[in-house]
Amino acid sequence: MSEDNSYQRVATDNYSLSATKQQVDDYIKRYFQGQLPLARQVSVRYENLWKSAETLALAGGKRIRPYMVLLAYRAFANDDISRIMPAAVASELKHLAMLVHDDIIDRDDTRYGIANITGQYLMEYSYLESDDQRHFANSAAVLMGDALLSESFRLLSTASDDLDRLRQAQAAFSTAILHVIGGELIDTESSIRPIDDVHAITVARYKTASYSFIGPLKVGAHLAGAQPDAIAHLEDYADSLGIAFQLRDDLLGTFGDSQTTGKSNDTDLREGKRTFLIEKFDEIAHETEKVEFYSLFASQGLTADQASRLRQLLESSGAVKKTEEAIGDYAAKAKLALDRLHIDQTHHHEFAKLISICTDRQK
Amino acid sequence: MSEDNSYQRVATDNYSLSATKQQVDDYIKRYFQGQLPLARQVSVRYENLWKSAETLALAGGKRIRPYMVLLAYRAFANDDISRIMPAAVASELKHLAMLVHDDIIDRDDTRYGIANITGQYLMEYSYLESDDQRHFANSAAVLMGDALLSESFRLLSTASDDLDRLRQAQAAFSTAILHVIGGELIDTESSIRPIDDVHAITVARYKTASYSFIGPLKVGAHLAGAQPDAIAHLEDYADSLGIAFQLRDDLLGTFGDSQTTGKSNDTDLREGKRTFLIEKFDEIAHETEKVEFYSLFASQGLTADQASRLRQLLESSGAVKKTEEAIGDYAAKAKLALDRLHIDQTHHHEFAKLISICTDRQK
Repeated sequence: MSEDNSYQRVATDNYSLSATKQQVDDYIKRYFQGQLPLARQVSVRYENLWKSAETLALAGGKRIRPYMVLLAYRAFANDDISRIMPAAVASELKHLAMLVHDDIIDRDDTRYGIANITGQYLMEYSYLESDDQRHFANSAAVLMGDALLSESFRLLSTASDDLDRLRQAQAAFSTAILHVIGGELIDTESSIRPIDDVHAITVARYKTASYSFIGPLKVGAHLAGAQPDAIAHLEDYADSLGIAFQLRDDLLGTFGDSQTTGKSNDTDLREGKRTFLIEKFDEIAHETEKVEFYSLFASQGLTADQASRLRQLLESSGAVKKTEEAIGDYAAKAKLALDRLHIDQTHHHEFAKLISICTDRQK
Repeated sequence: MSEDNSYQRVATDNYSLSATKQQVDDYIKRYFQGQLPLARQVSVRYENLWKSAETLALAGGKRIRPYMVLLAYRAFANDDISRIMPAAVASELKHLAMLVHDDIIDRDDTRYGIANITGQYLMEYSYLESDDQRHFANSAAVLMGDALLSESFRLLSTASDDLDRLRQAQAAFSTAILHVIGGELIDTESSIRPIDDVHAITVARYKTASYSFIGPLKVGAHLAGAQPDAIAHLEDYADSLGIAFQLRDDLLGTFGDSQTTGKSNDTDLREGKRTFLIEKFDEIAHETEKVEFYSLFASQGLTADQASRLRQLLESSGAVKKTEEAIGDYAAKAKLALDRLHIDQTHHHEFAKLISICTDRQK
């Protein structure tokens, strides 16, 4: 899972992502101020672990998921958002928990440009032998991820006084976690051995759409008391939007301007990532194009010239065009679902803007 | 964390642990029957991960924590327990999640006599190189633990129609998790480097008493609508009981009949485990006893004769007697707190029986 910058253009004054980030960050600071003394009661060592989580939580994160919780809540409740801030923050703590555990799986020691929990504990345990050092640093990260996940549910449980709404929000919250875990598993397993029954759209649906779009929007909508048919349309909207977002992400990963996206556009080609774009190429490319493509794709020593050639083949085969068409189709489906939602003009506008932000973006 | 057999003697017909185990196991089977198709919607690979968790969940576990949830509920509500079965099962799923993650930390590949999640995925990934095999097997276990932890909270959220009770239960549930994580962290860190501010009673309090006694009893009592003063007495009871239980566990670990306990009573001595017993020895033994003791304690090649000599020194120094006295003191404190609880005779009797079971046991 990676953070991205593409939502920053959502900026209607009091709805703005930057306003949400400020509110969420303030809440997170107060939250850790309350938790640190409790951890210290157990031991100064435990307080240290919580401090490492606080450092990480405040080092980055666009607060996209809290933003979506609040956006959906406002659309259906038109109410003061302070009551459901615990739910917005819960979605961020849960995300932090998932990132901490994902980084173990991806063997990454940094996040938001600083050492993540594993990274901080590699320093803490620098006196140990290399294998033990990593094992115990990862152990600390496993434990802290569990603490954050657990606390995200507790926080969510305080976000409403309506039991039915709360329970529906909790179910949506858990489903999003189960989906992202499934998406993560199949993504990880695909990287070690091809999986027949898995397609890029499936991974996009569970790893991105359900977790980052459907989950947060449903939590906000349930807490606002949205009706089942509205929830269903919102889910359709979020599913299509999330998939379109991921397909655009894949295209930018290979064709984006690395100055703008902030990451190399050769990496996916070098690692042989099985994106929707590659699936389309397999479907429509000629045999000679495929032979040339797969003589270079997924090779560790891929040169810049070879990467350019791969990009040419993806273009000339029509795979890029097919992917652009798919993005357009999913964006249209999202718009169709949105038009079925009975919400006022202002909120409709915000949701529509989100579609173009997710699908037209350059980064 | 280890399972033990000491509760099996709790057997007043409809309160019995064996009846609880049957009910909880039936519920767990139905739960997985419901979840497997949902996992399969994502991928057959994800269903496979869920199957590995089902196998593990049904391979063992005494269902002690569900038993305590139900015991406390009955004491305060005198009501049909079926309504709160989700809470009882939630406490077991949470425990399974913690065990799956703890086994990663302790580098154990078995649990309940079978391969745990890591163990099952070591076989699944047998085609990988050794380092990768373990890394990805542990990754699967990290993910499944997260899924179980998340689901435990969702299940708990369905266990009452009273929002206040539910929220209090959820807070107690999360606190128990935060405490056991803290206890686990300091226990792990103590094993790699001595920690000054940590005492055996602190580890016993957070790793055992809070997690296995206070948490489950409070969840049941809150769901039954117990009053704050009753909750406070119950917490005192459970804290003392849990500590007494752990001190007895430590004594049995070194002085128990290994035929009866099912584990070697040399292991703690060989591993140099810093139990309460050892802390007492440090406090009261003579310098010559200490010199002899520490020439043998924590040595990998400890012989049976040397272990016997260590046991003699622990006896002759008076450390065993001090530990027995401490167990008696904590048992008395538990009894005192119990007597302050206004519950009927039958339930009082059950709680009192639990004290003698936890403190007088031979295994």
